[in-house]
Amino acid sequence: MMQGVQGADMAEVEGGVTAARGFCAGAVSSGVKKSGKLDLALIVADHACPAAGVYTLNTMAAPPVHITRRHLSGGRARAVVVNSGNANACTGPAGIADAQAMAEAAAASIGCAVAEVAVASTGVIGVPMPMNLVLPGIDDAAGALTADGGDAAAKAIMTTDTFTKQAAVNVECDGVVYTVGGMAKGSGMIMPNMATMLAFITTDAPLTAEACDGILHAAVDRTFNRITIDSDTSTNDMCLLMASGDAGGAPIGLQDSRVSVLAGAILTVCDKLSRMIVRDGEGATKSVEVTVRGAASDVDAELAARSIANSPLFKTAIFGADANWGRVAMALGKSGAALDSDKVEIVFAGITTCKDGTAVAFDEARAFEALSAAEVDVLADLHLGSGTATVLTCDLTYDYVRINGEYRS
Amino acid sequence: MMQGVQGADMAEVEGGVTAARGFCAGAVSSGVKKSGKLDLALIVADHACPAAGVYTLNTMAAPPVHITRRHLSGGRARAVVVNSGNANACTGPAGIADAQAMAEAAAASIGCAVAEVAVASTGVIGVPMPMNLVLPGIDDAAGALTADGGDAAAKAIMTTDTFTKQAAVNVECDGVVYTVGGMAKGSGMIMPNMATMLAFITTDAPLTAEACDGILHAAVDRTFNRITIDSDTSTNDMCLLMASGDAGGAPIGLQDSRVSVLAGAILTVCDKLSRMIVRDGEGATKSVEVTVRGAASDVDAELAARSIANSPLFKTAIFGADANWGRVAMALGKSGAALDSDKVEIVFAGITTCKDGTAVAFDEARAFEALSAAEVDVLADLHLGSGTATVLTCDLTYDYVRINGEYRS
Repeated sequence: MMQGVQGADMAEVEGGVTAARGFCAGAVSSGVKKSGKLDLALIVADHACPAAGVYTLNTMAAPPVHITRRHLSGGRARAVVVNSGNANACTGPAGIADAQAMAEAAAASIGCAVAEVAVASTGVIGVPMPMNLVLPGIDDAAGALTADGGDAAAKAIMTTDTFTKQAAVNVECDGVVYTVGGMAKGSGMIMPNMATMLAFITTDAPLTAEACDGILHAAVDRTFNRITIDSDTSTNDMCLLMASGDAGGAPIGLQDSRVSVLAGAILTVCDKLSRMIVRDGEGATKSVEVTVRGAASDVDAELAARSIANSPLFKTAIFGADANWGRVAMALGKSGAALDSDKVEIVFAGITTCKDGTAVAFDEARAFEALSAAEVDVLADLHLGSGTATVLTCDLTYDYVRINGEYRS
Repeated sequence: MMQGVQGADMAEVEGGVTAARGFCAGAVSSGVKKSGKLDLALIVADHACPAAGVYTLNTMAAPPVHITRRHLSGGRARAVVVNSGNANACTGPAGIADAQAMAEAAAASIGCAVAEVAVASTGVIGVPMPMNLVLPGIDDAAGALTADGGDAAAKAIMTTDTFTKQAAVNVECDGVVYTVGGMAKGSGMIMPNMATMLAFITTDAPLTAEACDGILHAAVDRTFNRITIDSDTSTNDMCLLMASGDAGGAPIGLQDSRVSVLAGAILTVCDKLSRMIVRDGEGATKSVEVTVRGAASDVDAELAARSIANSPLFKTAIFGADANWGRVAMALGKSGAALDSDKVEIVFAGITTCKDGTAVAFDEARAFEALSAAEVDVLADLHLGSGTATVLTCDLTYDYVRINGEYRS
């Protein structure tokens, strides 16, 4: 993941998707979730603004993904309408019509063009969207819009999440303070492929649409695309960025000297949100940061790190606080990355367990204690080249099986 | 998996690796397994005979894999020495020397050339082989060789397996009855890549070394390479075939008219053993046969079937007897296989749950009952072409987590 981005001029602040100037949000219980919990949110900019999106590469991509990609193709957006409890996925032409109708209802409620509305959905796959609940819900959410509505919106997008995922930072550049904030949801079917489950980032920086697009792709590649809960890529993944420009100043394009500061701030928010998603992985008791270095290339390092992070045997060993480096060796060996089996070094939580491809004596009790922490680092050094990659994951536990063995029934 | 191979001239018979004429086996408790269970076996042909092997593609392949590949490169073998409890993997040059010493000890005990001995190991990774126990054990096993030793040998290769895996068939061709028998072990770290965990097949047919090699590769591709317990590929995978020729007759080469009969018998034994491995998958409560048809190609069908069979969300749904077809749709969509999301059809245990990419009303109670069986079929028809593939897997359960969260500690 990203490192060293948080410079002296960046400060964490309260809030999430409405932390930046120029955005408000509202959330309601529309009834899609039978529990009566919040399940529908609107995020609205005071005026249409530059925006960009990154979307799932799953070829069964859901109707809201198609609609939002089309609407944001011009690089501008005014609002996002998002519901939880129903993914509007595998719903065919009727699902497309429903997603379109959600955009139309939001546009009518807040008074903007339909093409300025992004639509996102998360929840069960294959069930028609209950539009009789959703359409009035959108109207109610428009009536509930407030400048501090980010918290309610973050609650409204949760499914099996156990806590809301929000982050915001202030960053100063040339005397102007910019705010970047965002929210995301997990927490299963998470191995984003060019996008994450659902994440919405806002900023008051005057970024151009081109800058939004470039910065967002770069940030997602280093954050949401480097996490995996269960190796399963959702049909509804989407990460959106909107830039209101309300902090003032001239537009910031990709060639602007200020762009790296904003890119750093957006990267920081994406990083925080992606770490929260991993921490709240279904059934997870701990987060694991898997780093592979010394690979022949960065691509090889990512292959190897992903192979470890997705291995059920590795993930159950982490659950058992077991420094079972043989399973890391196995995962390296099956990854497809170039390696010399006589050079591999494996380190659990700072404790070297394998060097030159063979066992190193270590204190098992100390390793057990170190691996019982909520956050664990595992490092594999291939000693071949300078390729490096880090992937975040969580352990595989009884609760993952419980949550997903009982989910739909 | 294979279908329609079992013709009128093939009959299942008792026994395993010693069912075919010309083979004996012996097994002992050498002490490698602290439980005192059988942990070391010898399989010995009455005379050196044509043989072939298929080995793991894991680049961390263990020393016994390297030694056996070298010894069998000439297409002949006399004996296999195999231990459980220690995989002799990630053990460096000392591990190579230990595997070589095991071959030497076996050769000395039975009186054959060292290069005629195959070596296989399974168990914990990264621990030096306790040669002070193994070497006397090999001598003891040679003293225990009997023509009905297959059962003990099958017990001696078990690790987390809960039952022995043996199969044998008789097949008649041109008035001669040939026997093919074999044994295998599971039951975790199983997604064989050109080989399976450990499987040993014997026949009394006078197959040439070339025929052994061709038949074995073809059979493994359609059986062991189509199963997955947990998507993890072991460092010690190995499948060996030895052909004593003791049934008599002229050598059977790849161009011989009898070869298809033998290939069918060997395929049948491999199929039976691979199904046993799945049935005994770590923590498994049921076997699942995932078939994808109507794909653009067989390669696409295999990609798609493997994506479903390896999906933790699919596997936990099967554990919960939940016809959660949305997870099958998700897995199809992330697989990389070409598909038209409006054409996908998904059938659980004969019950159509999704057609034209959208939900079909079905009887949930009936589906729950059907999916509560010990063997379950799941079919996805992409309605694009004629590509077909079947992959066998098992469900993902609490016990998988328990077994692997506690394994080494």
